[in-house]
Amino acid sequence: MTSSSNGSGQSRRAFLKGAAAAVPAAAAVATTAQAEADPLITELQDWASGLGDGVDATPYGLPIQYEGDVIRRNVEWLTADTISSINFTPIHALDGTITPQGCAFERHHSGAIELKKDDYRLMINGLVDQPLVFSYADLERFPRENHVYFCECAANSGMEWAGAQLNGAQYTHGMIHNMEYTGVSLRTLLEEAGLGAAGDLKDKWVYVEGADASSNGRSIPMEKALDDVLVAFKANGEALRKEHGYPVRLVVPGWEGNMWVKWLRRIEVTNQAIESREETSKYTDTLADGTSRKWTWAMDAKSIVTSPSPQMPILHGKGPLVISGLAWSGKGAITRVDVSKDGGKTWETARLAKPGEKMALTRFYLDTTWDGEEMFLQSRAMDETGYVQPTKDELRAVRGENSVYHNNGIQTWWLKADGELENVEIS
Amino acid sequence: MTSSSNGSGQSRRAFLKGAAAAVPAAAAVATTAQAEADPLITELQDWASGLGDGVDATPYGLPIQYEGDVIRRNVEWLTADTISSINFTPIHALDGTITPQGCAFERHHSGAIELKKDDYRLMINGLVDQPLVFSYADLERFPRENHVYFCECAANSGMEWAGAQLNGAQYTHGMIHNMEYTGVSLRTLLEEAGLGAAGDLKDKWVYVEGADASSNGRSIPMEKALDDVLVAFKANGEALRKEHGYPVRLVVPGWEGNMWVKWLRRIEVTNQAIESREETSKYTDTLADGTSRKWTWAMDAKSIVTSPSPQMPILHGKGPLVISGLAWSGKGAITRVDVSKDGGKTWETARLAKPGEKMALTRFYLDTTWDGEEMFLQSRAMDETGYVQPTKDELRAVRGENSVYHNNGIQTWWLKADGELENVEIS
Repeated sequence: MTSSSNGSGQSRRAFLKGAAAAVPAAAAVATTAQAEADPLITELQDWASGLGDGVDATPYGLPIQYEGDVIRRNVEWLTADTISSINFTPIHALDGTITPQGCAFERHHSGAIELKKDDYRLMINGLVDQPLVFSYADLERFPRENHVYFCECAANSGMEWAGAQLNGAQYTHGMIHNMEYTGVSLRTLLEEAGLGAAGDLKDKWVYVEGADASSNGRSIPMEKALDDVLVAFKANGEALRKEHGYPVRLVVPGWEGNMWVKWLRRIEVTNQAIESREETSKYTDTLADGTSRKWTWAMDAKSIVTSPSPQMPILHGKGPLVISGLAWSGKGAITRVDVSKDGGKTWETARLAKPGEKMALTRFYLDTTWDGEEMFLQSRAMDETGYVQPTKDELRAVRGENSVYHNNGIQTWWLKADGELENVEIS
Repeated sequence: MTSSSNGSGQSRRAFLKGAAAAVPAAAAVATTAQAEADPLITELQDWASGLGDGVDATPYGLPIQYEGDVIRRNVEWLTADTISSINFTPIHALDGTITPQGCAFERHHSGAIELKKDDYRLMINGLVDQPLVFSYADLERFPRENHVYFCECAANSGMEWAGAQLNGAQYTHGMIHNMEYTGVSLRTLLEEAGLGAAGDLKDKWVYVEGADASSNGRSIPMEKALDDVLVAFKANGEALRKEHGYPVRLVVPGWEGNMWVKWLRRIEVTNQAIESREETSKYTDTLADGTSRKWTWAMDAKSIVTSPSPQMPILHGKGPLVISGLAWSGKGAITRVDVSKDGGKTWETARLAKPGEKMALTRFYLDTTWDGEEMFLQSRAMDETGYVQPTKDELRAVRGENSVYHNNGIQTWWLKADGELENVEIS
């Protein structure tokens, strides 16, 4: 694909055929050429001249060596110690919507613990007719559900409140993953313990608590607990990874990741919110006047262009370009995503790979042409409630600049003429 | 959950509450007990008394040590050499529908080759207006699609033709996986090369060929090639594993896995089928009289109970039991799955976790009660064409007993009173 034969007015097909009919391409990555000119058909490559490698059944199959950089990454300065740390999904390098467990971000507050299934117990206590303790094997005897949901850390994009800081979609938006969960509905287990003792359920809560030393605990209104919360033991078909809460975690669709308690050990039915550390001094939105919003659970509609992006520069020169990204909403299905090339002055509606699904990642594409000029790339998501993803300035106008959590503002990548991209903010 | 307190006439809730109100359970796996009786609430466990492990960003996150047996496995005697081998997805231990790449079965004919993206080329030649060679980067510039599809080896369950042989769902039905693919439609690439030169497309074919030394090649009718075939470069969001054809494989929805050519290097538009080794002496159905059916591409509707199964015995005794399994059809969506406990005399309709999707795995559950008696467990799938999965004897009546490929007959697990299961065949 030679850079000399582009033409923004031409169709993609006409463009590529023009290139194919031209002399063999000289640019570094230029390769669409007449078949006769390609060495593939005249020279036998090493990998085609002998036997390849046998495939071991064990250990677990890993990515090929050439993909060794498609991994979770830490930002070492973000937390005080790697024991109390966080890492980031390489969303810039992924496509589709499913996140493999092996590269799905995770956050822990006192390390990832090793809890055997045989040792596992889940207690349901508090305002129930009969306190119960379930083993892992017990949980497997209740009816199961399968659902694909995203899990986003409330602090995802948090560093961007104060302005563009982290240079890559993995770091600005990579505290998210999207997996197919298998588990038992929390409603089923609560009804097993019996909610008669709780009386009117309207003002009741459940307090959910993890088994690690941090005892991460969160209060969830009963209405949500009885709606779509899952006690999950598989993700993408497999057992949960240790760092994702093996053997059992809570799945709270659409709500902030901190509530998806890992190594889930206890669910208490209560008369009121517990107001734990993780829902008071942490994971609350601090406003301009220093006060904080009491509860912000759902993750609002948000989107990000994953490619091109600072970690995924354009190497192929002018001509056909696929702009790809992810969109999601904790309040329902994504209905539309727009992409801007000029920092939000004008917008084009992107193509959704599939119709949006509730509380799950949606992949969008804009099949376009790059004329080699700089762009200010943005995306904005809309969900089934009619909500439109806001700009960062619109968020700041309401919440001030003290916030860290729940930044769903529109992100900008500055695409330069050389194909490199930079995280910038434009007003 | 004590084995003394079951009652098939009771509801699941009543049963469990009965158990909970009884004395602390004494059976090995019995654990639903009054909260006060469980040691969890009086003793602090090791894993809750100190910091857990930090989580390395690298290497790629692996399953926890306790899940070390949830891996692909070879049956060493099945092929002459591990270089020309096959392995099996641990479907008995998985749930949901997505298969992680790391434990997804694979079959290769001359080893898994290591082909760098930069070295990769895909040629389209033959009856096209302009032969073209695409680099990997070229492919990324065409509009992409995302689809979840199953891939089943034509020889899956093949050893069962001659009677029950392999003791476990992983071995009898594990040559299948189900992933979310991202790629470019083959139609797009063929139209890029131009099909004017092919004339009437009705009787035309494409011959697709891999880059490994086996040069695995198959002929595909043009109608299918222009319908839903994908040139795929991602599975479950990530790059393909080496053994799944990195960097590019063909995805031929619903059709036998051998046609899903890995390390895809060439697509030739032809006037007729090539009649390659892999579609004549192999991958054809040999009938009773020694002749073979010329083509059998689509995988017919099929299902399997994955748990309980010989590798997943019942350890929990009588009472509530979840029977779980997978169903699929290469001719459309699964519409219904029935489960029999008495070897096909009577059937109960299972619950589908989600409505069936075309050419993708469907998870089914039967939430039931085990009274401790033996069962002959079977499942039968139905698809949107109205087709009903047949018995093995029904298949043999038509095809004789020389066949290996395309065995979609109903499988039987003999559940014994001790909870163990065995692969049996009943007539």
